[in-house]
Amino acid sequence: MPRPDLLETFENPYPTRPYEIHMDCNEFTSLCPLGGIETDAAELEQLTGGAPDFGIIRVTYIPAKVCIELKSLKLYLWSFRNDGIFYERAVNRIIDDLVARSDPRWMQVVGDFNVRGGIKSIITAAHGKRPEP
Amino acid sequence: MPRPDLLETFENPYPTRPYEIHMDCNEFTSLCPLGGIETDAAELEQLTGGAPDFGIIRVTYIPAKVCIELKSLKLYLWSFRNDGIFYERAVNRIIDDLVARSDPRWMQVVGDFNVRGGIKSIITAAHGKRPEP
Amino acid sequence: MPRPDLLETFENPYPTRPYEIHMDCNEFTSLCPLGGIETDAAELEQLTGGAPDFGIIRVTYIPAKVCIELKSLKLYLWSFRNDGIFYERAVNRIIDDLVARSDPRWMQVVGDFNVRGGIKSIITAAHGKRPEP
Amino acid sequence: MPRPDLLETFENPYPTRPYEIHMDCNEFTSLCPLGGIETDAAELEQLTGGAPDFGIIRVTYIPAKVCIELKSLKLYLWSFRNDGIFYERAVNRIIDDLVARSDPRWMQVVGDFNVRGGIKSIITAAHGKRPEP
Amino acid sequence: MPRPDLLETFENPYPTRPYEIHMDCNEFTSLCPLGGIETDAAELEQLTGGAPDFGIIRVTYIPAKVCIELKSLKLYLWSFRNDGIFYERAVNRIIDDLVARSDPRWMQVVGDFNVRGGIKSIITAAHGKRPEP
Amino acid sequence: MPRPDLLETFENPYPTRPYEIHMDCNEFTSLCPLGGIETDAAELEQLTGGAPDFGIIRVTYIPAKVCIELKSLKLYLWSFRNDGIFYERAVNRIIDDLVARSDPRWMQVVGDFNVRGGIKSIITAAHGKRPEP
Amino acid sequence: MPRPDLLETFENPYPTRPYEIHMDCNEFTSLCPLGGIETDAAELEQLTGGAPDFGIIRVTYIPAKVCIELKSLKLYLWSFRNDGIFYERAVNRIIDDLVARSDPRWMQVVGDFNVRGGIKSIITAAHGKRPEP
Amino acid sequence: MPRPDLLETFENPYPTRPYEIHMDCNEFTSLCPLGGIETDAAELEQLTGGAPDFGIIRVTYIPAKVCIELKSLKLYLWSFRNDGIFYERAVNRIIDDLVARSDPRWMQVVGDFNVRGGIKSIITAAHGKRPEP
Amino acid sequence: MPRPDLLETFENPYPTRPYEIHMDCNEFTSLCPLGGIETDAAELEQLTGGAPDFGIIRVTYIPAKVCIELKSLKLYLWSFRNDGIFYERAVNRIIDDLVARSDPRWMQVVGDFNVRGGIKSIITAAHGKRPEP
Amino acid sequence: MPRPDLLETFENPYPTRPYEIHMDCNEFTSLCPLGGIETDAAELEQLTGGAPDFGIIRVTYIPAKVCIELKSLKLYLWSFRNDGIFYERAVNRIIDDLVARSDPRWMQVVGDFNVRGGIKSIITAAHGKRPEP
Repeated sequence: MPRPDLLETFENPYPTRPYEIHMDCNEFTSLCPLGGIETDAAELEQLTGGAPDFGIIRVTYIPAKVCIELKSLKLYLWSFRNDGIFYERAVNRIIDDLVARSDPRWMQVVGDFNVRGGIKSIITAAHGKRPEP
Repeated sequence: MPRPDLLETFENPYPTRPYEIHMDCNEFTSLCPLGGIETDAAELEQLTGGAPDFGIIRVTYIPAKVCIELKSLKLYLWSFRNDGIFYERAVNRIIDDLVARSDPRWMQVVGDFNVRGGIKSIITAAHGKRPEP
Repeated sequence: MPRPDLLETFENPYPTRPYEIHMDCNEFTSLCPLGGIETDAAELEQLTGGAPDFGIIRVTYIPAKVCIELKSLKLYLWSFRNDGIFYERAVNRIIDDLVARSDPRWMQVVGDFNVRGGIKSIITAAHGKRPEP
Repeated sequence: MPRPDLLETFENPYPTRPYEIHMDCNEFTSLCPLGGIETDAAELEQLTGGAPDFGIIRVTYIPAKVCIELKSLKLYLWSFRNDGIFYERAVNRIIDDLVARSDPRWMQVVGDFNVRGGIKSIITAAHGKRPEP
Repeated sequence: MPRPDLLETFENPYPTRPYEIHMDCNEFTSLCPLGGIETDAAELEQLTGGAPDFGIIRVTYIPAKVCIELKSLKLYLWSFRNDGIFYERAVNRIIDDLVARSDPRWMQVVGDFNVRGGIKSIITAAHGKRPEP
Repeated sequence: MPRPDLLETFENPYPTRPYEIHMDCNEFTSLCPLGGIETDAAELEQLTGGAPDFGIIRVTYIPAKVCIELKSLKLYLWSFRNDGIFYERAVNRIIDDLVARSDPRWMQVVGDFNVRGGIKSIITAAHGKRPEP
Repeated sequence: MPRPDLLETFENPYPTRPYEIHMDCNEFTSLCPLGGIETDAAELEQLTGGAPDFGIIRVTYIPAKVCIELKSLKLYLWSFRNDGIFYERAVNRIIDDLVARSDPRWMQVVGDFNVRGGIKSIITAAHGKRPEP
Repeated sequence: MPRPDLLETFENPYPTRPYEIHMDCNEFTSLCPLGGIETDAAELEQLTGGAPDFGIIRVTYIPAKVCIELKSLKLYLWSFRNDGIFYERAVNRIIDDLVARSDPRWMQVVGDFNVRGGIKSIITAAHGKRPEP
Repeated sequence: MPRPDLLETFENPYPTRPYEIHMDCNEFTSLCPLGGIETDAAELEQLTGGAPDFGIIRVTYIPAKVCIELKSLKLYLWSFRNDGIFYERAVNRIIDDLVARSDPRWMQVVGDFNVRGGIKSIITAAHGKRPEP
Repeated sequence: MPRPDLLETFENPYPTRPYEIHMDCNEFTSLCPLGGIETDAAELEQLTGGAPDFGIIRVTYIPAKVCIELKSLKLYLWSFRNDGIFYERAVNRIIDDLVARSDPRWMQVVGDFNVRGGIKSIITAAHGKRPEP
C-alpha cells in the first residue's frame, strides 16, 4: 500500500532561484490489479493471468520552500511493490502525494512502463505550469 | 477486417487533470492490398508481387471521460493482421476508430512502417489540438 | 501451413569454394498454438489468451551444389503467417525444410523471438559441422 | 537524367485531415558532375577525379488532393543514378518535381549525403509553410 | 519463497538434434536479505539499509528429453519476488532447480544484476560441459 | 572546500557577438555530507553509510566582457573533491561562483549525478534569461 | 562490367612481417540482373521489377609481395555500378580478381548487402588459410 | 595561418528559395597557442605543455547569391592545421571569414572540440537571424 | 592509502561448482602521483600539472572457499581516493590484495581508465589460469 | 619526421606477472605523401590532391623489463603530424620504434584510419606471439 507518510523534505537551500530537480527511479515495480485493488503478495503464485509491472518513474520539479529527500522518495516508491494498481492511477497517485508533501512551483511525473502484451505505455502528468526558462 | 467493436474503455480515474497516455505497439502487421481491398489470407502464397507489411503503431492521447483498455487495443490492432490496407488508410482508420470509442481531448496516431522497396514510411495523423503543457 | 514446396534453388556459381551465405529475415510471424496445431486465422479475435508471435529468422549456410533463392525463402517464411506453431518446433522445422531442399555442407538456423510474458527466447539449431575457416 | 514523368499519385483517402507523410530513401546515388552536366555512364572508369555520390533523400509532406505513390517515387529517384548533378541542385530539383506532381499543402525535402573530402553535407529545402500541428 | 514446483516441462519435439534454447527474463526481482533469510514483505518500509534487488536472469540450455515451459519459468522466477536471497545463492539455486526439473544436456544461468553501491554484479553458473557446435 | 579564488578569466575576443560557450566536465566528484559540512578525507574509511558522489557538471554561458579560463575551471571543480556537499547546494554554489567571477550575459549549470539508491538526479540552475538565438 | 585491369598494387614495405590490412567500402552498388547478365543502364526505368543493389564490401588480407592500392580498389569497385550481377557471384568474382592481382598470403571478402524483400544477405568468401596470430 | 583567400563560391542555383545547407568537417585540427600566436610546426616536439587540438566544425547557412564550394572549404579549414589559436577565436574567425566571402541570409558555426583536461568544449556563433521555417 | 584490511569475505555457498562472479566498479578515482607516492589531499590546488584519475575497475573471479563481500570491496576501492598511484601499480596492487584475502581459483582485474593527454589506458592482470568452461 | 628518441620508459613495477597494457590514441594525424616522403607543412595549401590523414592508433602489449611512459608516447605520435607517410608504413614504423625502445614480451599496433575515397582502412601488425591467458 503506498505510504506517502514515508516522504520527507528538507528546506530548499536556494529558495529564490527557480532551479529544476530531476530524479529517475529505474526500479519501480507494482502488481497488476486483479479483481479488487488489494492483492495479497502471499498469493502471487496463483496469479497466472496477472503480472508484476515494472517501469521507470521520472520526477521533475521546481522546488518552492522544500526539496524532496532522495532516500525517502526511494522508500515511498518501494511501498508500491506489493500493491495492485493500474498505470494511470499510479502516476496520478504519485504526483498527488509528492505535491501534497512538497508544494512545488511546478512538477511533472512520468511513468515509463515495460512492454505488456506487445504494447509499451508511458503516462505523463503535471502539476502547475512550467515557468519560462 | 478491422474490428473496432473489440475496443473497450474504462472510466478515467483522474478526469480533471489533462495527463497524457502514450502506447507503442511494435508488432502491427497487415497485408499490402493487391487488386481489391479484400485479400484472402488463405491465398497468401499466390501473392508473389505483394508483401505483408510490418510497423509500429504509436498512440498518444489525453483522455477525457474514458481511457482505452490496453488489452482491447492489442486485440483491435491484431484484427488488421489479414487485412489488405494501404499505410495512409490504416493510420487514418485507426485514429477514427479510437476517437469514436474514447472521445479524447486530443489524440495522435503514428504509423512507423518497415522499409519497402528501399523506402521507409512514417504517417502521422492527429485529432484536435494538443493542449499547452 | 508451412509450404516447403515454395522453396527454390539455383546452381551454386562457385561450388569448389566453401563460402558462407547469411540471410536475416526480420519479419517472421506465426501464431501461438492453442489447443490443436491448426489455428483458424478467421477466429483470431477469439484468441484473447494467445498471441501472434514475431521474430527474426537468421539462416547461415555453406552451399554445396545449390544456393537457396532469396525470393522463394521469403515466400516460404510467409507461409508460417497463419500457422499455430511453437518456437522450438518452428526453428527445427525450418532447418529440416531448408536442408531437404538444398543439402548444404553446413547450416545454422536461429529464431530470435520477441519478448512474451517478459521473457525473450532465442532458439539455435545446426545441421552438420561448421568447417574450419 | 531525372524522369519526373515516372512519378504517379493516388487520390488522398482522407483529404480533409491534414496528416503528414514521411518517406526515407536510403539508397539515393548520383554522379558528381565534371565539366558538363551530362556524364556518360560508359565512361565511368575515366572519372578518376570525380566520384559517385551517395545519400539519403527524406521527403515529408502534408498531402492535399493526391498522395505520391511509393513505387513510382523509388523509380523516380533511381533515374538520378547515372546523372551528374550537384547536391544543392539535386535537392531543389526533387522538391520542384514532387510539388509539380502532387501540389501538397506543405513539403520538405532533405538530402543527407555521405562524407566527401572529410565533409558531410545536408541540404534542406521546403515548399510552403508547415501548418501548426 | 522459490517455488520449483511451479516449473513445467513439455516433451522435446526434436530430441535427436542438440539445439540450443536461450531465454532472457529482464524483470527478476528479489529482496536483499537482512538478518535471516526470511524477509517479511509487510515490513518493507523498515528496511532502510537494505534494498529490493533487480536483474536479468539469462538461461541457456540444450534440452534432452524435455523443454522448460515458458510460462511456468516466468511463474517460477516471480516466486523470488518477496524472498530475501543473495546474488550468488539465487543463481546457483535457479540452475539447481532447472536442472532437477529438466535434466538438460547442458545448461548455463547468468544473473546480471543492477548496480548496488556503485558496483554491478554478474554471476555465471553452468551445469555439464557445452557440446562442441 | 570550494576554491572560487582559483577561477581565472581572459578578455572576450569577440565581445560584440553574443556567442555561446558550453563546457562539460565528466569527472566531478565530491563527498556525501554526513553530520557536518566538513568531512575529513582521512576518515573516509569510517563513512560506511555515506558515499563519494560522482557526476558531470555542464556549464553553458554567453560571455560578456570575459571568458572563463578552461584550466582554472578544472582546478576549481577539483576543489570539491574532498568536500561534503549536497547536489542541490553544489550546483547552486557553482553557478554563484562562476557568475561572480565572469558576469556573463546568461549562464546555465547542470549537475548530472550518478545513480544513488537506484535514483539518478539532475539539477539545473540558470542565471539571467537566455537571449533569443 | 567489372574492370580488374583497373587494380594497381605497390610493393609491400614490410614483406617479412605478416601484418593484416582491412578495407571497408561502404558504397558498393550494382544492378540486380534480369534476364541476361548484361543490363543496359539506359533502360533503368523499365526495370520496375528489379532494383539497384547496395552494400558494403569488406576486404581483409595479409599481403605477400604487394599491397593493393587504395584508389585503384575504389575504381575497380565502381566498375560494378551498372553491372547486373547476383550477390554470390559478385563476392566470389571480387576475391578472384583481387587474388589474381595481389597473390596475398590470405584474403577474405565479405559482401554485406542491404535488405531486399525484408531479407538481409551477407556473403563471405576466403582464399587460403588465415595464419595463426 | 588561416587562409580565407582559399575559399571559393559558386552561384546559388535556386536563389529565390531560402533552403539550408549544413556541412560537418570532422577533421579540424589546430595547435594550442603558447606564448605568441605564431607556433612553429618544426618545434612541435618542444611543446610538452601544449597540445594539438582536434574537433568538428559544423557550418549551417542559408545562401543568398552564392554557395560555398565544398573543396575550398576543406582547404580553408586545413589552413588552421599548424596555427596556434584558442577555441573561441577559431570559431569566431571562421564565421567572419565565411560571411565575408558568401554573405549568407543566415549562418551558424559550431566548434565541437575534443576533451582537454577532462573538459569538453562546444562554441556556437551565429550571423543574422535564422528565418522562420 | 589502500586499505586491504577493509576487505571482508563470506563462505562460498556453492563451493563445489566453479561458477564465476563479475563486479564492475564504475567510480574508481585516485590521484596521479607527482614526486613522491604520498600526495596530500589538502594540497590539491597546487597540483596544476597532475590530475585526479578516474576509471572503472572490473573484477572477475571463480571463488574457492570464500566470496568477496560487495560492500567491503566498495570501501576498499574508496580507500584509493586520495592516494597517488600509477595505473600499472594500482591494478597489480588490487589483484594482489584481493587474491591475498580470498584465494580464488582464478581472478582477473581490469583497470579501464579515462582519457589522459588524448590517450585511453586499459590494464589487465590475471591470477591463475581460467578453467575451461 | 617521426622522433623515436622522444619515447621514454620506466621500470615495470610487476615484472614477473605477464599483465597487458592497452593504450588508444584517438588523435593521430599525418599527411598523405605526394611525390617524395618529405612534405613541407608550409605548402599545405598547394596539396589539393592530397589530404591530411586521421586515425586511431591502438597499442596493446605485455611489458617485460620496462613500460612505455604515457606522455612520451603522446609526444612520439605527435611527431608524425607533418610527416608524409602511407598507412602501411606508419603502423609498421610505430611497432618497430616501440619494440626497439621497450622490448616487450608481445605487442600489437592497430592503425584505424578515417574514410578516404569512401574506403576505411585498418592495419594490424604484431610482434612476437601473444601468450596464452
